[in-house]
Amino acid sequence: MSQLITIIGTGNVASHLAPALEDAGHKIEAVYGRSQDRARLLGDRLNNPRIADNLDFTRNRSTLFIIAVSDNAIEKVASDIALPKQAVLAHTSGTTPLSSLDRPGLENTGVFYPLQTFSRQRDISFEGLPLLIEASNAFTDELLSETGESLKAWVSKATSEDRQGIHLAAMFANNFTNHMLDIAGRIMKQGGLDENLLKPLIRETVEKAMTLSPASAQTGPAVRGDTNTIQRHIRQLEYNPVIQELYRLISRSIAESKPGG
Amino acid sequence: MSQLITIIGTGNVASHLAPALEDAGHKIEAVYGRSQDRARLLGDRLNNPRIADNLDFTRNRSTLFIIAVSDNAIEKVASDIALPKQAVLAHTSGTTPLSSLDRPGLENTGVFYPLQTFSRQRDISFEGLPLLIEASNAFTDELLSETGESLKAWVSKATSEDRQGIHLAAMFANNFTNHMLDIAGRIMKQGGLDENLLKPLIRETVEKAMTLSPASAQTGPAVRGDTNTIQRHIRQLEYNPVIQELYRLISRSIAESKPGG
Repeated sequence: MSQLITIIGTGNVASHLAPALEDAGHKIEAVYGRSQDRARLLGDRLNNPRIADNLDFTRNRSTLFIIAVSDNAIEKVASDIALPKQAVLAHTSGTTPLSSLDRPGLENTGVFYPLQTFSRQRDISFEGLPLLIEASNAFTDELLSETGESLKAWVSKATSEDRQGIHLAAMFANNFTNHMLDIAGRIMKQGGLDENLLKPLIRETVEKAMTLSPASAQTGPAVRGDTNTIQRHIRQLEYNPVIQELYRLISRSIAESKPGG
Repeated sequence: MSQLITIIGTGNVASHLAPALEDAGHKIEAVYGRSQDRARLLGDRLNNPRIADNLDFTRNRSTLFIIAVSDNAIEKVASDIALPKQAVLAHTSGTTPLSSLDRPGLENTGVFYPLQTFSRQRDISFEGLPLLIEASNAFTDELLSETGESLKAWVSKATSEDRQGIHLAAMFANNFTNHMLDIAGRIMKQGGLDENLLKPLIRETVEKAMTLSPASAQTGPAVRGDTNTIQRHIRQLEYNPVIQELYRLISRSIAESKPGG
């Protein structure tokens, strides 16, 4: 069912989600942002929404209000916002519990968390994307799930506790993986070498991990117990003590993760 | 130019490289492996090579002998092998210096290092794959480069010192990235969550890092200085002290890698 939706926030999630919702047949009634300029910029990419200058939405006709602001601003928005009765209020955060939306008189609260890394410079399709739903009641659950399905997302239920685990796992899968790639690139630069040489290796590493499972895809000196190579690498990293220590600790962690290790 | 080639080794590199060389129009004259059974298995996938039972190749007609054995076996093979005069002897190792092939009477030595992670279970195309060449003289350089070009690989020159840096960078890009994905998967399992939920995030993380550069793609609590989230994640990891310490150290490394950090 097509919804009338109000978007609070103009950041990475809001600016990917709002156009995707319109593409899926919904209508964005209003956009609110702390910066009116950024709200207008997002509005320009949508079908003529009202640019709201405050959080009093009691006269809006939206059935769904989506808070897509930074984690530490969610509670403040939830306490300041005024909604029509029966409207659903949902946030899009992986780390924020559903209870952060608790407020007297507000019955239909939920979480609508797309498990993805969004950035202004890159288009993201919601098709097949995990969309983790939590809801205070069956009505809200149905509305959020239907909205997720309309995006062709992979709609899945997750409690606030589930999301804590997922968000921590995502730190390793996203942030920390990215940091490994950053260090690899810096080592190449340090040696005057073309970083692009690593790209086929990186692509295959990830495809292999996802096909075979990372545990069985693990190779290298740490899993082989090849201490000569480990010691040589550690000497090569003498110029950067933090990365050197990282090398040591990750090697230890790999060795201890071995089946039987 | 089409070459007659002898392959020493039956492991992951040999068993990907030998069929690719035949597909590119070369002929594998002989295969040698410590295990005759494995040499025969590889031979079965080729156009009827001789399965050699020793390293005396003085009567072979091959112009190129490729040693694709484990790093610590290369010197032993190089000292035991007997070659026709003028033949080129090359190894495929990232970590082993060209000088490990030095031997009186052996003039044409080289390195033919495909920068990729090979495993029995996955097909690898050599097209576009970095193939790092080092050679003792111009004749060898030309023969190895032409052979690499015939595979449509990305042929590039790299000294033994370059390869040391590239191999260390590849540790982070391959081994350590894979370990991050392994930990992410284990955190999901620990919480009874479906690991597949992370796949779209992992794919986008890597594509984004390769498009935008990992440094500018870095997001998350460490780069934002969000100590609340970091502390909560560290508490969540109390059940595994090594991974907990890894979390701390990677977060510190990310914070210190920030431009101006």
